[in-house]
Amino acid sequence: MARKRASSTRRSAREDAVVVIGMGRFGRALALELVDEETEVLGIDEDAEVVQSLSGSLTHVVRADSTKEDAMRQLGVHEFDRAVVGIGTDLEASILTASLLISFDIPHVWAKAISEAHGRILEQLGVHHVVYPEHDMGQRVAHLVRGRMLDYIEFEEDFAMVKTNPPADITGVPLSRSSVRTRHGVTVVAIKRPGEGFTYATADAVVHPEDTIIVAGHTRATERFSELR
Amino acid sequence: MARKRASSTRRSAREDAVVVIGMGRFGRALALELVDEETEVLGIDEDAEVVQSLSGSLTHVVRADSTKEDAMRQLGVHEFDRAVVGIGTDLEASILTASLLISFDIPHVWAKAISEAHGRILEQLGVHHVVYPEHDMGQRVAHLVRGRMLDYIEFEEDFAMVKTNPPADITGVPLSRSSVRTRHGVTVVAIKRPGEGFTYATADAVVHPEDTIIVAGHTRATERFSELR
Amino acid sequence: MARKRASSTRRSAREDAVVVIGMGRFGRALALELVDEETEVLGIDEDAEVVQSLSGSLTHVVRADSTKEDAMRQLGVHEFDRAVVGIGTDLEASILTASLLISFDIPHVWAKAISEAHGRILEQLGVHHVVYPEHDMGQRVAHLVRGRMLDYIEFEEDFAMVKTNPPADITGVPLSRSSVRTRHGVTVVAIKRPGEGFTYATADAVVHPEDTIIVAGHTRATERFSELR
Amino acid sequence: MARKRASSTRRSAREDAVVVIGMGRFGRALALELVDEETEVLGIDEDAEVVQSLSGSLTHVVRADSTKEDAMRQLGVHEFDRAVVGIGTDLEASILTASLLISFDIPHVWAKAISEAHGRILEQLGVHHVVYPEHDMGQRVAHLVRGRMLDYIEFEEDFAMVKTNPPADITGVPLSRSSVRTRHGVTVVAIKRPGEGFTYATADAVVHPEDTIIVAGHTRATERFSELR
Amino acid sequence: MARKRASSTRRSAREDAVVVIGMGRFGRALALELVDEETEVLGIDEDAEVVQSLSGSLTHVVRADSTKEDAMRQLGVHEFDRAVVGIGTDLEASILTASLLISFDIPHVWAKAISEAHGRILEQLGVHHVVYPEHDMGQRVAHLVRGRMLDYIEFEEDFAMVKTNPPADITGVPLSRSSVRTRHGVTVVAIKRPGEGFTYATADAVVHPEDTIIVAGHTRATERFSELR
Amino acid sequence: MARKRASSTRRSAREDAVVVIGMGRFGRALALELVDEETEVLGIDEDAEVVQSLSGSLTHVVRADSTKEDAMRQLGVHEFDRAVVGIGTDLEASILTASLLISFDIPHVWAKAISEAHGRILEQLGVHHVVYPEHDMGQRVAHLVRGRMLDYIEFEEDFAMVKTNPPADITGVPLSRSSVRTRHGVTVVAIKRPGEGFTYATADAVVHPEDTIIVAGHTRATERFSELR
Amino acid sequence: MARKRASSTRRSAREDAVVVIGMGRFGRALALELVDEETEVLGIDEDAEVVQSLSGSLTHVVRADSTKEDAMRQLGVHEFDRAVVGIGTDLEASILTASLLISFDIPHVWAKAISEAHGRILEQLGVHHVVYPEHDMGQRVAHLVRGRMLDYIEFEEDFAMVKTNPPADITGVPLSRSSVRTRHGVTVVAIKRPGEGFTYATADAVVHPEDTIIVAGHTRATERFSELR
Amino acid sequence: MARKRASSTRRSAREDAVVVIGMGRFGRALALELVDEETEVLGIDEDAEVVQSLSGSLTHVVRADSTKEDAMRQLGVHEFDRAVVGIGTDLEASILTASLLISFDIPHVWAKAISEAHGRILEQLGVHHVVYPEHDMGQRVAHLVRGRMLDYIEFEEDFAMVKTNPPADITGVPLSRSSVRTRHGVTVVAIKRPGEGFTYATADAVVHPEDTIIVAGHTRATERFSELR
Repeated sequence: MARKRASSTRRSAREDAVVVIGMGRFGRALALELVDEETEVLGIDEDAEVVQSLSGSLTHVVRADSTKEDAMRQLGVHEFDRAVVGIGTDLEASILTASLLISFDIPHVWAKAISEAHGRILEQLGVHHVVYPEHDMGQRVAHLVRGRMLDYIEFEEDFAMVKTNPPADITGVPLSRSSVRTRHGVTVVAIKRPGEGFTYATADAVVHPEDTIIVAGHTRATERFSELR
Repeated sequence: MARKRASSTRRSAREDAVVVIGMGRFGRALALELVDEETEVLGIDEDAEVVQSLSGSLTHVVRADSTKEDAMRQLGVHEFDRAVVGIGTDLEASILTASLLISFDIPHVWAKAISEAHGRILEQLGVHHVVYPEHDMGQRVAHLVRGRMLDYIEFEEDFAMVKTNPPADITGVPLSRSSVRTRHGVTVVAIKRPGEGFTYATADAVVHPEDTIIVAGHTRATERFSELR
Repeated sequence: MARKRASSTRRSAREDAVVVIGMGRFGRALALELVDEETEVLGIDEDAEVVQSLSGSLTHVVRADSTKEDAMRQLGVHEFDRAVVGIGTDLEASILTASLLISFDIPHVWAKAISEAHGRILEQLGVHHVVYPEHDMGQRVAHLVRGRMLDYIEFEEDFAMVKTNPPADITGVPLSRSSVRTRHGVTVVAIKRPGEGFTYATADAVVHPEDTIIVAGHTRATERFSELR
Repeated sequence: MARKRASSTRRSAREDAVVVIGMGRFGRALALELVDEETEVLGIDEDAEVVQSLSGSLTHVVRADSTKEDAMRQLGVHEFDRAVVGIGTDLEASILTASLLISFDIPHVWAKAISEAHGRILEQLGVHHVVYPEHDMGQRVAHLVRGRMLDYIEFEEDFAMVKTNPPADITGVPLSRSSVRTRHGVTVVAIKRPGEGFTYATADAVVHPEDTIIVAGHTRATERFSELR
Repeated sequence: MARKRASSTRRSAREDAVVVIGMGRFGRALALELVDEETEVLGIDEDAEVVQSLSGSLTHVVRADSTKEDAMRQLGVHEFDRAVVGIGTDLEASILTASLLISFDIPHVWAKAISEAHGRILEQLGVHHVVYPEHDMGQRVAHLVRGRMLDYIEFEEDFAMVKTNPPADITGVPLSRSSVRTRHGVTVVAIKRPGEGFTYATADAVVHPEDTIIVAGHTRATERFSELR
Repeated sequence: MARKRASSTRRSAREDAVVVIGMGRFGRALALELVDEETEVLGIDEDAEVVQSLSGSLTHVVRADSTKEDAMRQLGVHEFDRAVVGIGTDLEASILTASLLISFDIPHVWAKAISEAHGRILEQLGVHHVVYPEHDMGQRVAHLVRGRMLDYIEFEEDFAMVKTNPPADITGVPLSRSSVRTRHGVTVVAIKRPGEGFTYATADAVVHPEDTIIVAGHTRATERFSELR
Repeated sequence: MARKRASSTRRSAREDAVVVIGMGRFGRALALELVDEETEVLGIDEDAEVVQSLSGSLTHVVRADSTKEDAMRQLGVHEFDRAVVGIGTDLEASILTASLLISFDIPHVWAKAISEAHGRILEQLGVHHVVYPEHDMGQRVAHLVRGRMLDYIEFEEDFAMVKTNPPADITGVPLSRSSVRTRHGVTVVAIKRPGEGFTYATADAVVHPEDTIIVAGHTRATERFSELR
Repeated sequence: MARKRASSTRRSAREDAVVVIGMGRFGRALALELVDEETEVLGIDEDAEVVQSLSGSLTHVVRADSTKEDAMRQLGVHEFDRAVVGIGTDLEASILTASLLISFDIPHVWAKAISEAHGRILEQLGVHHVVYPEHDMGQRVAHLVRGRMLDYIEFEEDFAMVKTNPPADITGVPLSRSSVRTRHGVTVVAIKRPGEGFTYATADAVVHPEDTIIVAGHTRATERFSELR
């Protein structure tokens, strides 16, 4: 029983920590961002070279075969509350690893899927969050490739935020008098003067032609707005 | 000269069209999104099976080797104004294709990079926009994996938008009286009632505990705000 | 609605039929046994040669990629009530196929596992019955390799049936007087005279030294019994 | 001469021991079952990882190339009385190993076959017992996949044992009065109450609807019986 | 029974014919030599190119997979009295083919072995004659590589024939007076004058210094004789 | 100059020695036969396992890459008078090695060819003796496969020696009175009584029906003779 | 005899033609240059795609396996007087092809070597001209990589021609008065004015600072001259 | 700042040095030629065997992966002024390496291209000098393969130098009186007497029939001249 308590103490120590398995582009960016936010990360990859190249940036990064239960238990993976499977190219390794994490009853398991079938399997296994980087980025770039938008993000079905250059008819007057919402169906959320960062757009802010703005609104409305000149 | 005019006429016909090369997850999602927006798309992939599986969704999708100049010219790729290289796994094919598009003087070339070195090469070749789906999604998920945030997007260095559940101290009063900006350094941009879509948050809107909200602000401020309860 | 009814009619037509995917040794033996019992079988394999070699024995056997949803739907696999995944060597194909069958809501899905991890994944996906031929046959042969037993089968933890030659002390008298149950803890279930088949052992049956018998009992008791001479 | 006697002494020491070559699913299950029964086992596999993973469960397990005569002699394989070739995927290694064991004049050689041709070769080489796990399990599952049977085993051509739920017409009365043998042609061999193990079915035992039973009889009779409700 | 007679009639038609499987260097040379001797030959090889290149020289040469029983039966291989397995590089194919021929009860099966283990397996399968071209030629060349012998063949343990140039002390006198047998322990079997063929050496034949001779005798005696000058 | 003399002294020490490169079946048999005859042999092979397995039988056997000039010079290969290239499966390695030996001006280079083209290249390179084990053994076996001959060897175009059982008409009388040469065109060279070795056949020797004999003669004559009964 | 004459007539028709085997970068450039000079060329390559891509530029270009004698004879390769083996990456194919051409007695065979060993083999086979593009270009670029030389070519050991910019001290006066030969040990061979081609340098020609010149002389002298400013 | 100065001092030390990456035939010949000219060279190759074989000839030669920025910086590659990419067969490695060198701002980067597409990419990346050994040597050999020319080099479009044997009509008289320039449009640049080296051809030099000469002139004129007899 003493042992169990010790174990549960160890677990609580890892409550905020995240184990990231597969340190490719996705896993690496995720892990480094977490470290930036002062979250403890255990990085795991099968490739010794990858592990070594990250040993300077991550405090805990080890070479291990994540499809083997013994290896994962020795690293204490089963005691984490949050795990991310970033394995990308090897479908089988991704599934074996995710299956193992689920069998450990880890409460928050994220996994990257590289195809619809892969995503369906991960969900059937019981993975809690399945992400599709290629698919989502493809959709996002579709809005940028055609022209004027500088960035595009859809938060939910039919509600998007767009970074763009302002059309002539909203510049030079305070936003509250620009009728941008009534005429274009979008709201200016933030404004960025050349050489500065974004700041929240207040009602009396004036957009200049050389500014960059972020607008929010229904998807089509933001699309149309970004095509104005 | 007559020939040149003919050519420039043909080109204008394709001014809004986009050629997408490499119909993996990224290219496919991008192409289907463009078709949804009624943009003409020419999809190209080396794999006959991939091409066939898309023939129902895309009007123009052909099997061709995008590293061969002859094949690309026969498809009129050199006459497009916008091209996307979505080739993902084959570094060499990605580079050969991008090099060819640049040699065609296509004005807007996008390409997906799978590593820093790949991205650097694409930029040295002259590709206009290089995207890193794995890297960007990794960074984005890092903010979600730890807990309360429902979605996260950084528009620029140090200006983020976060979808989250509202903390208790901003609910029940009009936003203009909630002091959310002064106390938390963020602005509530949009509100979503259960079962409805997002709508823009006006000054007199009242957030309810069961709502989902989008807030904008400096990265750290949005992080801290999402951890409130 | 008419269509739905048609569909449900078709389904009922296939209520007793079984789709067997992967016609290796396991799938083939299973399919042929079903055909012997006059059950309708649809056999599917990726290998054209395998399909052709079975076309004489199975009425419905086709070459198809069972990991592709389109291909499976065209064959009507989603309308079956019973499916068996016999794919053996290709873990990925086995998992993709099983995942697809589960997504079709087929009520009885069987699948063969080649390792513990494979079995765990199949169960996490929702497969209803997972079988382990190599493992089970290994256990069974373990009881035969040491000597006197001619066959061995464990129906449940600690209840086995054993085919063996009778020890001297139970031959020549009616079973009811042989005290086999009290002295050896096993019951003689069936007797086979040389050149004949097995018949059920009645209380007054007399075992001869040259007969083969089947006895039932706790595992250890049957083991010990088979070592008597 | 002294040496020969020593050798023959060593051999007698190994009379009951079993050498198992190829520690895949089949060999492993077989070896572990033998160890459970306190039989001495020498396990041999070519894969160092496999050997290491079994070193905790088997007292003697070594990495060696079983196709090399020198290696096998050094391990004393030629002195065993019982050998099992569990090599599964590599036909050539299976044949080379079996050939070597036969050339050692080992009196009881078992080998697993993965195809008819493989089985025929093993028999031509002189292997004493050839087993077909995939084929046998395929046949067995065929009887289960269609429905009510819980387990099925054929001891010999046309004499099977079936685990099933009892049909209504044999429950509630002592077996001796249920006419099960005359009406259905099968004999109830064992009964299992919920939460207990199987026990032999005596003439005055009463089957309850929630029990599980094992019946013996001709193959078709057991099939028909298991389909009763 | 009528059918059996028909079959045995067909068989007799093929009594003198030889089926040669595997048309590599060995099989090809064998087949062409047989054709030269007006023996009917059926050549079988898996490689279409090999088959085509031989179609001019062999009347019956077909492309088939000799490891498949069906394919072999369709070609009537089971009706031959003499079969040669010349398959060289693919151990598995050689064994599968030989096993099939033995199962056909072909009375005279020859097979080429590429190693001792291969040879042992072929013999255990029941192949009647196993030949080792590499091994035998290696032994033969060993006698030539050191010097004066022009050819060497050992018919049996310790009885060899050697083609060599005559030493000075046996030339110029009739063989009967040369004492070659008493002094050197060998017998001159044949003599070849420059520009002519070999003829049998009679007692009164005179060997000239520029002749080539064949001598017979014990292995060592022929060795020593060939080193005389 | 002193150095040159030393070198030429070393060379003379190796005058009778043979370097054998490629220790497959051919090279191994050749090397072992030479060692039996007390000839010094240097064996070279690229495969460490092959080298180790021969280290007990050959005094000098080393692992080296025979296509590298430096490696060969370090072993003193350029100082040998006799070299054999037994490399069999790797055409390129055989050619590179033979080319190197020729560039060393080794006076007697033998090489094994596996095809006509291989043989032609070896001859064009300047190899002094090219041998074709597969081809020669194929021709030899052709004479045995049809029946009565026990062994066959052609020394030269149209002069063969055949081991066979004697036909009835030459047994029981002294050879000088059997008219075997006039009637059959062959000469009996040696006779082997059951259980003994071959001895030279004198004019007054009597062949018994159970003897084995060797006859010499024109190819067709020996063929016809061996078919007599 | 008539046939022979016909053959020799055909051969003379091909006296000036060149067969080029292996249409990689080397063979292609060679063939196109020959076609430019109106020499008849037969191009041969194993790769259908390569052949098709050249079918517009070469009148005779066919897909064939140049290692097969039959294929080469059908194309009449044996009747050419000049052949070039441009095969680059496949050592074995290069050697087999060259060997075949030599066996055809083609009087002028050129072949490209990719290593010293390859070159040695080609020469031993009897190839008349062996070229080393990589090696020669490496040497040539070595002189350019360090600085001022614009091009460099060594015609023979110690006689080079160098393209360079003129040093100050030879400009502005007629060459005959510039003392370039006495002071620098080189001779100005040709002069190129900006925008014009090279012309031969006469004694009264005046070099201008912006001209490019070619000078000839001993290797070191040309090196030193090119480093003057 | 001290460090920067040190660094710039180190760089100046390497101003004349050349780093050569990829030590195949091209890189090796280039590096050895530079060493001959007393230029410092750092050779880099991925293959340990290649590196070792060159360690005697080059003072600095190391095994490293030139596609890795870290490895290159550790070797100080970024401080060189001159770099050559000789990587030949691996397109991807060539591009990754060249991209890295360009990102280091090395002022003089040379690279070898194996195809047009490869060359285009290298140029788009910013490589300063792209060389095509196979292509250039192919063109050069085209002029030699047809006959009389002994060597040929084109310095620029339409100005070539040719080594050839002199035609009869220019021998025996001083060059100034031979009218070679007026009649043949070429100038004799250098003359080589048998057994001597080339020397510059003065106006009063007399060409002998057995001499070798170098002539300069327009491409076609040199071609025609070399065909004179």
